[in-house]
Amino acid sequence: MTKIFCNISYDGTRFSGYQIQPRVRTVQGELERALTKIHKGAHIEIHGSGRTDKGVHAKAQMAHFESPYNLTPTEWKRAINSLMPSDIHVNETAEVPDAFHARFDVIEKEYRYYIYNEREKDVFKQNYVYQFPFALDIRAMQQAGKQFVGSHDFTTFSSAKAAVKGSKVRTLYEVSCHRDGSQIEIVLRGDGFLYNMVRIIAGTLLEVGRGKMEPGDIDYLFAKKDRQLAGDTLPPQGLYLWNVRYDEK
Amino acid sequence: MTKIFCNISYDGTRFSGYQIQPRVRTVQGELERALTKIHKGAHIEIHGSGRTDKGVHAKAQMAHFESPYNLTPTEWKRAINSLMPSDIHVNETAEVPDAFHARFDVIEKEYRYYIYNEREKDVFKQNYVYQFPFALDIRAMQQAGKQFVGSHDFTTFSSAKAAVKGSKVRTLYEVSCHRDGSQIEIVLRGDGFLYNMVRIIAGTLLEVGRGKMEPGDIDYLFAKKDRQLAGDTLPPQGLYLWNVRYDEK
Repeated sequence: MTKIFCNISYDGTRFSGYQIQPRVRTVQGELERALTKIHKGAHIEIHGSGRTDKGVHAKAQMAHFESPYNLTPTEWKRAINSLMPSDIHVNETAEVPDAFHARFDVIEKEYRYYIYNEREKDVFKQNYVYQFPFALDIRAMQQAGKQFVGSHDFTTFSSAKAAVKGSKVRTLYEVSCHRDGSQIEIVLRGDGFLYNMVRIIAGTLLEVGRGKMEPGDIDYLFAKKDRQLAGDTLPPQGLYLWNVRYDEK
Repeated sequence: MTKIFCNISYDGTRFSGYQIQPRVRTVQGELERALTKIHKGAHIEIHGSGRTDKGVHAKAQMAHFESPYNLTPTEWKRAINSLMPSDIHVNETAEVPDAFHARFDVIEKEYRYYIYNEREKDVFKQNYVYQFPFALDIRAMQQAGKQFVGSHDFTTFSSAKAAVKGSKVRTLYEVSCHRDGSQIEIVLRGDGFLYNMVRIIAGTLLEVGRGKMEPGDIDYLFAKKDRQLAGDTLPPQGLYLWNVRYDEK
């Protein structure tokens, strides 16, 4: 058996998320359908770096699968892409050691959240950014972002529905905000993210940008461990899984 | 009765074109549904500057309707937008003289066609550009574009299915190509366009860009009046109705 690594982009608009589920269209479902077809009906399971929710995009989702076939990376890429719908594309494939695992070996994930900050709506961006028409104080958002960096218990900033049994401590390496014209880009890098954590941090930064919270409030919010105190969960269409990094083994 | 002019954007992806038709989702259908609701069930007809096909976008489609109501332009804009789906947006409304007609008074239309010229597919552009992966000679395309400017019989460059009874002579003021990184923008301005004319001209410029035709061939194609000799009709998702101009009366 050969282990094949894939770097995959998808437009999340018409998917019910990454993870396979019965009777709905999922990214994993499309990938496994293609791999099973390539393997003449033998079911091939693909292991992603993690899930993304309904409507969330991926610039670079990573995954692996095992195959008895002996194709070159270029042949794998071509074979899978030839069976992909228009909203999924395999950017790269590579052969990896048996010990590699696309989920367990992640050392860093990067997400980006895009806010389109204009009074007038842009119909062409409806599925790709969160359109917010009111003034935002970007410097306050930048300051607040810095308060998230480091190791914290992120209970306040994760969905109360989260089924995580273990620790809610995660380490963030970067939470930065940049304005480029009408577009605000929030970059988040960390060793892991709890359920809805990026969208809740983005929603909290938005509250700061509107002047309803202050950068200095973030420490208090961490201490209270209460989801109700943080900002709203921003909608999925502004969120992109941007990159996943692994140890060079 | 007051005559109201509207400047409208729409993402054509999920519409079966501009013009109202039974049992399918159309831009005109959505607009008339909203206007009829505002008028408490009285049917209000909206007159667009012209049709756009299934999948074609509009940055600025123009239209008018008549109403017995006395709202300000800001109130009209807000009332209609509050009833619009996420893929239509009214950018501007204005009161116009009784004699104004959004179709008959057009003096110039501008279309733009976007080609994304990269080897690797971009899933986020699937509905918004035509993705063409092979090398294109942009200078040859620019030269060929100039051959279309002026008054010509556009029979060769319009759909053979076109139901135009009158003259197929149209006057183009501009057909230009610009490359900006991976993106090629084709700008077309003229006094009118026949059915599929923009997409067939764009397809012919693509043939020139690939070296399968030469700029000097365009005059011959005009003379032959044969649709079969021109390039393919490029797909709708790269096409935008960009602007419609009227006489200042």
